[in-house]
Amino acid sequence: MTVEPDISLARKLFDRLAEATSDGVGITRDSYGAGEAFAHDLIASTARDLGLETRTDAAMNLYVTLAGEDRSLPAVMTGSHLDSVPRGGNFDGAAGVIAGISVLSAWLQAGKKPLRDTVVIAIRAEESAWFPVSYPGSKAIFGKLPAEALELKRFDRDVTLGEAIEAAGGDPRALASGTCLLDPRTVSRFIEVHIEQGPVLVGSNQPVGIVNGIRGSFRYRHARINGVYSHSGATPRAHRHDAVAAAAAFIERLNAHWSAFEKNGADLALTFGQLSTDGEQADFSKVPGRVDFSIDVRSASAQTLEAFESVVLREVANVEQQTSTRFDLGPRTASTPAPMDAELISEMMDKAEALGIDARVMPSGAGHDTATFALQGIPSAMIFVRNHNGSHNPEEAMEMADFAVATRLLGAAMDAEPPMLRDCQPMENTSHA
Amino acid sequence: MTVEPDISLARKLFDRLAEATSDGVGITRDSYGAGEAFAHDLIASTARDLGLETRTDAAMNLYVTLAGEDRSLPAVMTGSHLDSVPRGGNFDGAAGVIAGISVLSAWLQAGKKPLRDTVVIAIRAEESAWFPVSYPGSKAIFGKLPAEALELKRFDRDVTLGEAIEAAGGDPRALASGTCLLDPRTVSRFIEVHIEQGPVLVGSNQPVGIVNGIRGSFRYRHARINGVYSHSGATPRAHRHDAVAAAAAFIERLNAHWSAFEKNGADLALTFGQLSTDGEQADFSKVPGRVDFSIDVRSASAQTLEAFESVVLREVANVEQQTSTRFDLGPRTASTPAPMDAELISEMMDKAEALGIDARVMPSGAGHDTATFALQGIPSAMIFVRNHNGSHNPEEAMEMADFAVATRLLGAAMDAEPPMLRDCQPMENTSHA
Repeated sequence: MTVEPDISLARKLFDRLAEATSDGVGITRDSYGAGEAFAHDLIASTARDLGLETRTDAAMNLYVTLAGEDRSLPAVMTGSHLDSVPRGGNFDGAAGVIAGISVLSAWLQAGKKPLRDTVVIAIRAEESAWFPVSYPGSKAIFGKLPAEALELKRFDRDVTLGEAIEAAGGDPRALASGTCLLDPRTVSRFIEVHIEQGPVLVGSNQPVGIVNGIRGSFRYRHARINGVYSHSGATPRAHRHDAVAAAAAFIERLNAHWSAFEKNGADLALTFGQLSTDGEQADFSKVPGRVDFSIDVRSASAQTLEAFESVVLREVANVEQQTSTRFDLGPRTASTPAPMDAELISEMMDKAEALGIDARVMPSGAGHDTATFALQGIPSAMIFVRNHNGSHNPEEAMEMADFAVATRLLGAAMDAEPPMLRDCQPMENTSHA
Repeated sequence: MTVEPDISLARKLFDRLAEATSDGVGITRDSYGAGEAFAHDLIASTARDLGLETRTDAAMNLYVTLAGEDRSLPAVMTGSHLDSVPRGGNFDGAAGVIAGISVLSAWLQAGKKPLRDTVVIAIRAEESAWFPVSYPGSKAIFGKLPAEALELKRFDRDVTLGEAIEAAGGDPRALASGTCLLDPRTVSRFIEVHIEQGPVLVGSNQPVGIVNGIRGSFRYRHARINGVYSHSGATPRAHRHDAVAAAAAFIERLNAHWSAFEKNGADLALTFGQLSTDGEQADFSKVPGRVDFSIDVRSASAQTLEAFESVVLREVANVEQQTSTRFDLGPRTASTPAPMDAELISEMMDKAEALGIDARVMPSGAGHDTATFALQGIPSAMIFVRNHNGSHNPEEAMEMADFAVATRLLGAAMDAEPPMLRDCQPMENTSHA
């Protein structure tokens, strides 16, 4: 039985959120702050009004459950986050929670009772813009939030993550102990709807994408090239130690390697998002003696990341020699690629075809809570919704027609009979942005 | 008759200057400020004590004259400036004035009376670090200081150049009217001693260089590349408008052209001294949407500058197309290369050989007041003194032995019989650094 999702409820929820969490420029729903709390209260009260069960865990993640016929079976789970970056958009995160609620509301109205418990989860604090911790909400679910993370402070206030969790009603001591708040064996599949944060679906003119992997990364966020300042007119080329010339050569070489990797079919994204000579010492008439820069490398494949990192290190040595400069890559951070479940993707593509939905399989370049579920061994997938102007800004623009298509596909994927059982598994720490 | 310069006086003067104008870190002698005033007073009183004539002009340039036998003949002139950049070194500028004084002092002691008036000039305000005007002192001498320049403010104080000149005892109204303060026909030659601001003489192990041309330049000090910010993980390469990738490609292409120009024997220096993504918007996880940068191109040849500028503009178009970005080069400034007098250079090389001095002919990459004299048609030359660690910093390190060699050569060049007569000629505005 195909039941159309309750798009009228979704529209009301988006409007209420936009109204209440507007900051005049965009949308601000601060993690474990007033903005996120409003959104959680709105979803919880809406769920209770519909007659759904609600509960929270020690991290104040919200679980909205439609009871299944056999409550002992592993549940179907969907959801996303409700927080936003400062001056962000209304759809990044919220679309995934509201999609789930729209399905459950429609099922209730249609009198449909699923076999398994069907859960919409609103995960806390996905946006690391507030606290410098990645995925604290979903990590806490599986006992994977490092105790130290609770001591990290919010970027704009003298309050730690642990204090903010406690103020929101949660139990930071339980989180610090690393207890599993949810046994992964009790979840049969996890599917997250999220707006696409890039231009692929707009470019290909398709309403939705099915994500086949969440890219991992390695980063050198505070790399530096050390050269020697000297007079631009009085220093011949052979005497120079020019940090900008070194940076340009390095970037060009790595961009060429990126092309070669892509030609060989590798999934890869290379970005030098920040690059700067020194604000005090650099001058238009000096050979520049220092450049600070960031490198961000992402891939859905751990092997590709490893191969490209060795290329990066080799080119550091080459460019140092060629330009008489010295690189200091600084601290390295990394996250593990999270492959989505191949069977689930294939099932969802079949369902899309059956529903007449034009979908494409694509990687997710950005990190998402789904990575945490996938790395626990829970069969996971994501549905991307076409979205204009990227995310994390007020110009985010998802159309409700595309949201309805994505939610229809989500409903079909939630209405299924998956059997898997798995243990709580070790997981590497991940960072994302 | 070869008279050894008075190096003992020079040493005393350098020491007095260093003592009185130290700022704790380096040397600060602000243009038309207290630091420069101290230096001018020191040189003027030393000259008067020696029995030399002193006078100032409306720009408060100081002229120290040893009267010649025939005072109607065009004079021989030497000199440099006495100001410094903030936290600069003790030798940039002052070495040229002190070298001249050392020669005159020795001549007086030896009872030598030259045929012509022999003048040491201390030129005001050569360092444009203080007022954003190039060569106000030497330009004023020839009535070439634009009246508007007098309205420009000192970088760190609410005082205009005109006000500072007036406070120092000068007459800004006379300067604004554009009167020639010195008829170029009354100067037979101009020779400036200056520390080298680059590493060439240190590298070649020679105490002095004879400058064959002062490089001109064109600059785009506030160029910008406009791209589009987007998510680094979610934006495939073909969809990017990456300002850093564009900057790297542009710099690499121009550096390759620079190599090609040098292989063809052209004199050229290309510097991207400042380069920066936006401090507010750029992030390690965003494709960068903007880069600000500077281009500084110098050559002793006007034709080379013209040819290279057309290459710059062509590569702007190429890189815009290749990277889907847009360049805005912003305001352009330029200065004219000033060729030194070929006969004078040849005469000085002969004199160096006769004195057993190992000298090389080399261009000056930095601008100097001598350019103003040369562009007036006065036969001009410069003597560079070997110097470690560049200039405009406290680590400037000229050795007195090298200074003595340069001053001996200067004395020989001042002791000569040049006949030239020329008119006040039109001159392009020049900027320098």
